[in-house]
Amino acid sequence: MSELRHDPLNRRWVIIAGERAERPSDFELMVKPVETAEPCPFCDGHEAETPPEIFALRAPGSLPNGPGWSLRVVPNSYPALAIEGAADRRGVGVYDRMHGLGAHEVIIESPSHELDLADQPIEHLALVVRTWRDRIADLMRDVRFKYVLLFKNHGAPAGATVRHSHAQIIATPVIPRAVAVELEACRSHHELKERCLICDIVAQEVEDGRRIVALSESFVAFAPYASRFPFETVIAPRRHHHEFSQTTDGGLHAFAAILSDVLRRLKLLLRDAPYNFVLHTAPNTNVVPRRASYFTTLEYDWHWHVEILPRLTRVAGFEWGTEFHINPTPPEEAARLLREVEP
Amino acid sequence: MSELRHDPLNRRWVIIAGERAERPSDFELMVKPVETAEPCPFCDGHEAETPPEIFALRAPGSLPNGPGWSLRVVPNSYPALAIEGAADRRGVGVYDRMHGLGAHEVIIESPSHELDLADQPIEHLALVVRTWRDRIADLMRDVRFKYVLLFKNHGAPAGATVRHSHAQIIATPVIPRAVAVELEACRSHHELKERCLICDIVAQEVEDGRRIVALSESFVAFAPYASRFPFETVIAPRRHHHEFSQTTDGGLHAFAAILSDVLRRLKLLLRDAPYNFVLHTAPNTNVVPRRASYFTTLEYDWHWHVEILPRLTRVAGFEWGTEFHINPTPPEEAARLLREVEP
Repeated sequence: MSELRHDPLNRRWVIIAGERAERPSDFELMVKPVETAEPCPFCDGHEAETPPEIFALRAPGSLPNGPGWSLRVVPNSYPALAIEGAADRRGVGVYDRMHGLGAHEVIIESPSHELDLADQPIEHLALVVRTWRDRIADLMRDVRFKYVLLFKNHGAPAGATVRHSHAQIIATPVIPRAVAVELEACRSHHELKERCLICDIVAQEVEDGRRIVALSESFVAFAPYASRFPFETVIAPRRHHHEFSQTTDGGLHAFAAILSDVLRRLKLLLRDAPYNFVLHTAPNTNVVPRRASYFTTLEYDWHWHVEILPRLTRVAGFEWGTEFHINPTPPEEAARLLREVEP
Repeated sequence: MSELRHDPLNRRWVIIAGERAERPSDFELMVKPVETAEPCPFCDGHEAETPPEIFALRAPGSLPNGPGWSLRVVPNSYPALAIEGAADRRGVGVYDRMHGLGAHEVIIESPSHELDLADQPIEHLALVVRTWRDRIADLMRDVRFKYVLLFKNHGAPAGATVRHSHAQIIATPVIPRAVAVELEACRSHHELKERCLICDIVAQEVEDGRRIVALSESFVAFAPYASRFPFETVIAPRRHHHEFSQTTDGGLHAFAAILSDVLRRLKLLLRDAPYNFVLHTAPNTNVVPRRASYFTTLEYDWHWHVEILPRLTRVAGFEWGTEFHINPTPPEEAARLLREVEP
C-alpha cells in the first residue's frame, strides 16, 4: 500500500508508492512512452480490460461493462491511493505519515481513440463536465477525503501515458499544498477587505482587457498576470461561487462552451501542444470546517477556477529549487495571439 | 527589460522576459536542444565568445579573457535579470511588479567540454565550491539583492542548454517562494522549540540511518523522508550554520568530498541521469532583517543545505496543480541502492 508522507521543512505531502523500487536497470524506463496502439483498454469493445465501471452514459438497453457507451468512469488500474481503510495518522519524529488512503478514477471522455477534448462537440463536452461534477460531488460524500482533484494530462511531455483522451480524479485525505496556499491567500484577503480575492482578480482582468482570452456572460478566460508558463490560461465563473460540484446544468453548459473555445484556440495556435488541466474547487465542505475564521468562510472567500498549463518550456533547476519561474512570453502577448485565432 | 510579477493568489513571483513573444511557428522550438558541438563558447580558446570574465583561476602570466584558465565566471549572455537600476516596486491593482533587477552569472567548472562535476578530482571540486562561496558573498554585498541562488542543470531533460558543465547564479530582489516556505517553517519551529528544524532532521536521519546516502565527520547526505523524486538527495552540514558563504576553506573541502561522493554514486547507479542541483543558503543577511522575531533570528533557525533532484520521472498535472508529488521509489530503497554503489 502506498503511504502519504509530510516534510515539515517544505510543508509538502508526497505519495510514496508501495512497490519495491525498480532495479537500477529499469530507471531509464521510468519516463514511460505513451501507449498509442489502437485499440486500447479505453476503446469501445475493450471494456473488460479496465476495472468494472463506476458510471457510464449508455445507449438504452446496453449492459454495464460492455459496448454501447458514450462516456465511462472506471477506477484507475494502477491507483496512486487505495480506497480501503482509515488514514491512521502518525508522527514519525519530526515527520508525519498516514496510509495512502484515497480514490483514483479515470473519466474516459468518448469511445474514440483519436478525438480529444478540443474536438468534442459542445453538447458532448457538457456531458463530460457534468460527469466531472457528479463524480466530485459523490466522492465528497466520503468524509475521509479532504480534497477531490480533477486533472487532465494531454500529450507525452505533459505526462500522459495513454493516448486515448481521459481525465483523472484523485481524492486525498489532506489538502494539497498548492490549494492550501491559495486558500490562505483568499482567507486573509477576505478578512482584510470583505471581498473575494478571485472576484477582485476577475473584475480587474475584465476591466483591463489586455489579458482576456475569451469572455462569455458567465465565464472569463484570461492569461494570469504572473503566468508561470507561456499561454497559461485560467477559466473562472464571473459570479462568485466556491464549489464546482454545485454548478447547475445550465452553468456547466456555459462552462463547456468557454472551455471548448479556449482548448480550440490553444490547439490551433500551438499546434496541439501538450498541456495539463487542473480544477481548483473548494476543499470538501462536508468535512473541512466551514468557518475558517470569525470574519470569513469558504463560501465567501473561495472561488473555483481551472488552470490550463501548456507545456512548451522545460522546467530546470531554477524553477524546481525556488518555485520561481522564468516565462519568455508576456501574458498580454499570449492573450492577444489566442484572441486572434479563429476557432 | 524583464519584469518581476507577483500573483496574490498563489504568492509566486515570476520573471516575465522582456522580448516580444515568438511567433506561433517558433513555439515548437521553445524546448531548445542541448548544444553539444565542440568547441563551444565555454571551451579553452573561445573566451571571446562570452562576456568579459568576472573571475578566473589562471596559470601565472595568463591574461584575462584568454586561454590558460582552469575555472571561469562570466555574466550569462542571455541574462534573465539585469544588473542596472533599482527595483521600482509598484502595485498594479491587486498585483505587484518591479523591474527585472538582478544578476545572472555562469560558473564554467573547467576548460574541458566533456568532464562533468562528478568527474572532477576533489582538489578541483574544492576550488569550484570555493568559487561558488566567493561569488555568493560578493553578490550579497549588493544590498539590492535579497537572495542569491546557485543551481546547476545536468542533462537536457533537466533543462541544460549547453553540454559543457557549468553552474549558474541568479541574484534576485525578492526571496523565492520555495525558500520563503522553508524559512517560515524553520522560524516557527525555533520559536516553539528553541531548536533548529534542520538540526532536528539531521539528528533524526543520522540516528535512524535507513535514509543515509553518505556520512562524513562534518556532512550528511540523505534521501528526504518525503522525497518528491526518486533518488532525491539532500546534503547538509552536521553542525548548525545558516550561511554557505561563510564556510571556511576547510569546511568547503569536506563539502566537496561528500558532494563528489554523492554525484559519483548517482552517476554510476543511474547511468548519468539528468539532475538539478540547488543550494538553499540564507537570504542576504546584509539586508534581510536579522531579527525575524523576538524569539529567533536567521543565524539560529536557518541551516544551509543542498538539494539534488534526479529527473527520472515525468511531472504531470497532478504535481503541477497541487505541488503534491507521486514518488514510485521509497527513499529507504533509494538510499540503500546508493549506499551499495562503489564509487
